[in-house]
Amino acid sequence: MSGYVRELALAAREAQQAIAAAGAARRSAALEAMADRIEADTEAILAANADDLAEADSTGVTAALRDRLRLDPERLRAVADGVRQVAALPDPVGVVTRRETRPNGLVVERQRLPLGLIAMIYEARPNVTADAAALCLRAGNAALLRGGHEARRSNSAIAASLRAALSDAGLPGAAVTVIEDPAREHVLELLSLRELVDLAIPRGGEGLIRFVAEHARVPVVAHYKGVCHLYVDASADPDLALRLLIDGKTTRPGVCNALETLLVHAHCASEFVPLAVAALHARGVEVRACERSRALVEGLVPATEADYAAEFLDRLIALRVIDDLDDAIAHIRNYGSNHTEVIATRDPLAAQRFVDALPSAVVMVNASSRFSDGGELGLGAEIGISTTRLHAYGPMGAEALTIERFVVRGEGQVRHPPGG
Amino acid sequence: MSGYVRELALAAREAQQAIAAAGAARRSAALEAMADRIEADTEAILAANADDLAEADSTGVTAALRDRLRLDPERLRAVADGVRQVAALPDPVGVVTRRETRPNGLVVERQRLPLGLIAMIYEARPNVTADAAALCLRAGNAALLRGGHEARRSNSAIAASLRAALSDAGLPGAAVTVIEDPAREHVLELLSLRELVDLAIPRGGEGLIRFVAEHARVPVVAHYKGVCHLYVDASADPDLALRLLIDGKTTRPGVCNALETLLVHAHCASEFVPLAVAALHARGVEVRACERSRALVEGLVPATEADYAAEFLDRLIALRVIDDLDDAIAHIRNYGSNHTEVIATRDPLAAQRFVDALPSAVVMVNASSRFSDGGELGLGAEIGISTTRLHAYGPMGAEALTIERFVVRGEGQVRHPPGG
Repeated sequence: MSGYVRELALAAREAQQAIAAAGAARRSAALEAMADRIEADTEAILAANADDLAEADSTGVTAALRDRLRLDPERLRAVADGVRQVAALPDPVGVVTRRETRPNGLVVERQRLPLGLIAMIYEARPNVTADAAALCLRAGNAALLRGGHEARRSNSAIAASLRAALSDAGLPGAAVTVIEDPAREHVLELLSLRELVDLAIPRGGEGLIRFVAEHARVPVVAHYKGVCHLYVDASADPDLALRLLIDGKTTRPGVCNALETLLVHAHCASEFVPLAVAALHARGVEVRACERSRALVEGLVPATEADYAAEFLDRLIALRVIDDLDDAIAHIRNYGSNHTEVIATRDPLAAQRFVDALPSAVVMVNASSRFSDGGELGLGAEIGISTTRLHAYGPMGAEALTIERFVVRGEGQVRHPPGG
Repeated sequence: MSGYVRELALAAREAQQAIAAAGAARRSAALEAMADRIEADTEAILAANADDLAEADSTGVTAALRDRLRLDPERLRAVADGVRQVAALPDPVGVVTRRETRPNGLVVERQRLPLGLIAMIYEARPNVTADAAALCLRAGNAALLRGGHEARRSNSAIAASLRAALSDAGLPGAAVTVIEDPAREHVLELLSLRELVDLAIPRGGEGLIRFVAEHARVPVVAHYKGVCHLYVDASADPDLALRLLIDGKTTRPGVCNALETLLVHAHCASEFVPLAVAALHARGVEVRACERSRALVEGLVPATEADYAAEFLDRLIALRVIDDLDDAIAHIRNYGSNHTEVIATRDPLAAQRFVDALPSAVVMVNASSRFSDGGELGLGAEIGISTTRLHAYGPMGAEALTIERFVVRGEGQVRHPPGG
């Protein structure tokens, strides 16, 4: 390995100490300055983005990828506003979460500390550069960013604005460091820096996330698939269930908190399945259905095992009629991805059993899966949604970029007093 | 790989669901039964231990290793009592740590969930088998245990008692699974089971911990070295500082929370260094000293760079006179291991700067480093002391073997209301 990323990481780690020491007010001011600077640099950023787009057009990319890559003045304003929202969030650093006095008089506190240096490895969206950097800084961390090759000029231009704003605020620009050289070996080097990188967060397609998990020697919190389920219980209000289905499946099918499978209790299937299929078809959603559903509605495509495990990210849904709550739980345990599950029910005992029996990151009762999002759940912003059951599970906000440590205050207490 | 560990892990994961579903009272009863069973099986466990000891004697081991390996009726009673203490701890599973109502009426809770399957990889002490299994079960997890080769008969005998007690309590014995085949390849297989093992905790020497960190494809929370510092500030009460020094260095030099380096402010060095050296020498501790210390006390061995970074685990200490608090902080950042640092001071501002500037897992003001321990800090018991700044940092108790997830309750809320 060339040592190129190692040098960047060392400088970013050094810079992190200044970010951590700066205190909440200076971090907020720096974040405000970063937002302003992005807007002031609109022309330069859009010019860099135009170059990325031109290259993308010349090599031929999908319309979806091109759209993710593209910035315009409005989108850039939204990026700046996102940074401003992070600037307004409560600063988690130094917050004392618990305090206890021990029988020997020691006062034991738990206090939030920045993680240190956080590496983000992501794909085409250049807005992630600003979003991730802002949330890392809010929690007193430095960010080492490795975006997609297609967006490299846009990412560098955004990072240049962020770094300039940090410098103006008297803080080291190296706290936001972009790995600009696109060589693939640099990702491997990044993932090998065990003493330097405190956390790596991959954000993107399953291929990227598996690559990172496979090669990382640094701690990783990954977001795998969102195979989200809606289970419609026998006691569900059909109107409510239908509302959750439409919101969960059709308002933005390409995101990870969209529904992928609908499970319906046999007792309400003859009423609910035809309603559901009609509503889905009316909104252009293809239904892949189990045998029992196909007995209720003609002309549905049969669902395969693969459909039950699929994250379609598209106008497609799997539909299965199951015998009871236990079968719903067994189905979700078998095919699910531990991301987000929803029960529609009027039975509080069924709701409680559903919550207790499923170890998913987010479990909802009578609410849309689309609320599985840091902003919607009160975190203010999110850097990703963890499906790794360690450190953070579900949407990760600024607090998830800190760790709790122990601060102990005494008056000379010792464990083995002399003569004691 | 043979698939041998994979089969064990699959069975343990299956068993974990029953442990999680059992509820706090049944987990407590099972833990009580485990403690009783260890005592009832004393004869069998000690016989297995005698075989391990005989093999150790025939191959020739150090007295220290032999002592760590050895069980006797008293030690075994202490093991059982440790399990009883864990049985009496508050059960963390299902505990709601926060509850917030969002403006749209959604009630968002954070709730503790077991991590799942926890793998412990450890060395000679057979008591770890019972300690680790008990704490894992307390938090609703299953434990997959790989102890040292030398202790394998003792570990298997203890695990047999624990499993028998689980079965008697109507819970699956596979929730405590020992990897009995000693082949080294099984550790590698264990560390490769990314979809099955939620957390691996290595406990033992630095070699073991580095091996695990190097080869793990599963999440690891490691405890590296404890290079713990005592910094005696200019304003320190010399009697208090001396008490912390003696407790920290001499009461149990072989443990990770023992002191390894003493830093003394130049303003009090001429008074404190001779006192400290005399007290250390009187207790058989060798002092490796900087030039300025050697100017104050004759005949001290010069300290090397390596001494400042060393975890002696012995009756040895490094001593350095530094110019001021900033130098102390710089020294600790440079040579420390982020385990536990202590300041002795009467100056509250100096204390606060020391706490704020050091990102160690445990920072103490006027208290002995030897309190850096789960029991002493109020966790009831500990499975290890993390120096990994992710998930848990410092002593890890039952709560550190859980993760917080989101439970959301609504009344049909959707993110994009029709016509909204």
